[in-house]
Amino acid sequence: HKNMYKHSKTNVNKAGEKHTNLDTVQDIIQKLIKLKADRDTLLVGVGGGVLTDITGFVASIYLRGIRFGFVPTTILAMVDASVGGKNGIAIGVYKNMVGTIKQPLFLLYDFSLLNTLPHKEWISGFAEIIKHACIQDATMFNFILDKDLKYFKENRQELTKLIIKNVSIKIKIVQKDEFEKGDRKLLNFGHTIGHAIENTYQLSHGNAVSIGMVLASKISEKELFFKDQKLVESVLKKYGLKTRLKFDLDKTMEILKNDKKMKSGNIQFILLKSIGKPIIKTLDINNLQNTLKHLL
Amino acid sequence: HKNMYKHSKTNVNKAGEKHTNLDTVQDIIQKLIKLKADRDTLLVGVGGGVLTDITGFVASIYLRGIRFGFVPTTILAMVDASVGGKNGIAIGVYKNMVGTIKQPLFLLYDFSLLNTLPHKEWISGFAEIIKHACIQDATMFNFILDKDLKYFKENRQELTKLIIKNVSIKIKIVQKDEFEKGDRKLLNFGHTIGHAIENTYQLSHGNAVSIGMVLASKISEKELFFKDQKLVESVLKKYGLKTRLKFDLDKTMEILKNDKKMKSGNIQFILLKSIGKPIIKTLDINNLQNTLKHLL
Repeated sequence: HKNMYKHSKTNVNKAGEKHTNLDTVQDIIQKLIKLKADRDTLLVGVGGGVLTDITGFVASIYLRGIRFGFVPTTILAMVDASVGGKNGIAIGVYKNMVGTIKQPLFLLYDFSLLNTLPHKEWISGFAEIIKHACIQDATMFNFILDKDLKYFKENRQELTKLIIKNVSIKIKIVQKDEFEKGDRKLLNFGHTIGHAIENTYQLSHGNAVSIGMVLASKISEKELFFKDQKLVESVLKKYGLKTRLKFDLDKTMEILKNDKKMKSGNIQFILLKSIGKPIIKTLDINNLQNTLKHLL
Repeated sequence: HKNMYKHSKTNVNKAGEKHTNLDTVQDIIQKLIKLKADRDTLLVGVGGGVLTDITGFVASIYLRGIRFGFVPTTILAMVDASVGGKNGIAIGVYKNMVGTIKQPLFLLYDFSLLNTLPHKEWISGFAEIIKHACIQDATMFNFILDKDLKYFKENRQELTKLIIKNVSIKIKIVQKDEFEKGDRKLLNFGHTIGHAIENTYQLSHGNAVSIGMVLASKISEKELFFKDQKLVESVLKKYGLKTRLKFDLDKTMEILKNDKKMKSGNIQFILLKSIGKPIIKTLDINNLQNTLKHLL
C-alpha cells in the first residue's frame, strides 16, 4: 500500500494471557469499525504470542477476513506463536477454545526488540525451543544442554541462528500438515497437561509447558521405555523453567476433558521414544488419570 | 454418528436479529464447553437465518472448527441464509461485520415447518426470492408477478418448486465464486442500502432489502436506463413488502462507509440493465450520496 504509513493507526493492548477473550476481540473490532477499516486494511500485530493470536483471530473474522502480518517481540512468539497460522482465544480457564487457522501475509523479525525483553520472557521462550529439540532435533538438544541462557543472551549471533533454526523446524512441520491431521500434533508435546494447568495456576506458558513436558517424559518412560527423562528435566531446569507442580488432579482432569484433542473419551498424547523421536499415542482418559496419580 | 440421538443435546436461542452478537457467541461456546462438545461434535442449527448464521460462525471457530449442518425453518433461511456458507454476526447496528465463509455438512429441508411460520416471515422470505428473480431469472420474475402470497401458501407443491428453484439459483452462483471475488457479489442486490437501514430502523430483513432494491432500481434507471423500476416496486408491494422509507441520509451514509464492500472511498453496487441482467458497478461514495439525495 503506497500510503501505508500515512494511513496507519495504532491500537495498544494490555499485556498478558488474561486479556485474550471474546470481550477483547469485540473491543478491537469496535475500534476497527470506528477507524473505518475496510477490506484493504492490513492488520499488523506487534507483540508477544497473546497479541499475535488475537491479531490473527480478529483479522480472520473481521469482514469475513482481512490481511494480517506479525512483528513478534518475544522469543516465544518468534519461535512458536507467530508461526504456523494457528490462533486461539481463551474462554475462562480454557485455552484456545476458539480460533481459526489462517496464515499471516508476513512475519517480520527485528532481533533488537529482544534488548528490552524481561528475563522471565526469555525463560518462557526457551520452553518451546527445548520442545522443538525434544521432538525433532537431538543435535540441537545437546547443544542447548551444553550452553545456558546467559550464553544466548550474550551471543546474539548464536541466538539468531537458534531462533531461525526453530522457526524452520516449526514451518517444516506446518507446511506438511497445516490443519493438524498428522505430524503437526507433535508440536503439542508438553502442551496437553500444560494447557490444563496454565490458566488455573497462573503459570507462564513456558513454565506450564515445561511441567507438561516433564510429565509427558515420565509417561514416555512408562509407556515406551524412554530413557532420557532426567536429561529433559535437567535442560529445562538449566534454563530456569519450573519442572514440577503439585496440582489438583481431579480439577485438571476436568479441564483436560475439554481439550480440543479429546475424542470420545480418548486423547491423543505426544510421547518420546528417544530425544528427537516422538510418537502420537491415543490414551484412554481414565488410564491417563491413573498414571498421573502415580506420578504426582 | 451411531449414537447421535442418544448423545444429542439441545440449546434454545431467543429469536431475532438483536441476539446475534459476540455475547451470544460467547454464551453458546460456554454451553458447548459445559456439554464437553469435542471435535466429533456435530452442531445442528434449526431455525431462521439468524440462528443458522450463529451456528455456522460458532462451529467455524469452536476448537478451530467443528462440523455443522442446518435445518432452516423460514423461507428466508431456506432460499438464502442457510445456503452458501457465509455467516455473519452484527456488531451494534453494523450487520455481518464479523463472520466466516464455511460450508455446512448438510442442509435438511422440512417444508412442514412452514405450517407455523408467521405471516410476516413469509413476506420477508419473498424479498430474497424476488431478488433472485431480478438478478437471474426473468421467467421466474414474471411468474411471481402473476401470482401472490396467498397462491403460494395454498399451493404447497408450487411453493416447494419455487424454493428449490431459488436454492439452485443461489448454489449455482456460490459454486462458481465461493469467496465473492466476482459473480457472488450479484447476490448483494438491494443489500447495500438494505443493511445500512435494517438495524437502525428495526426493519425486517425482507423490508430492508425491498427498500434497498427499489432504490437500486431507481439508480439503475439513472445509470443504465433500466426500464422496469416500477415493475420491481409493484411485485414487492404485491407480496406485502415495504418499498419506501424516509431515512436519515447522513446517518445511513455513515453506516454505509463501514460496509464490507467499501474500498478506498468506492463501493461496488449491484445495478440492473434489465430484469435478470445485473451488473456490478463501482460508485464513488459521494456521488452515491448525491444520487440518493435526489431520489429521497
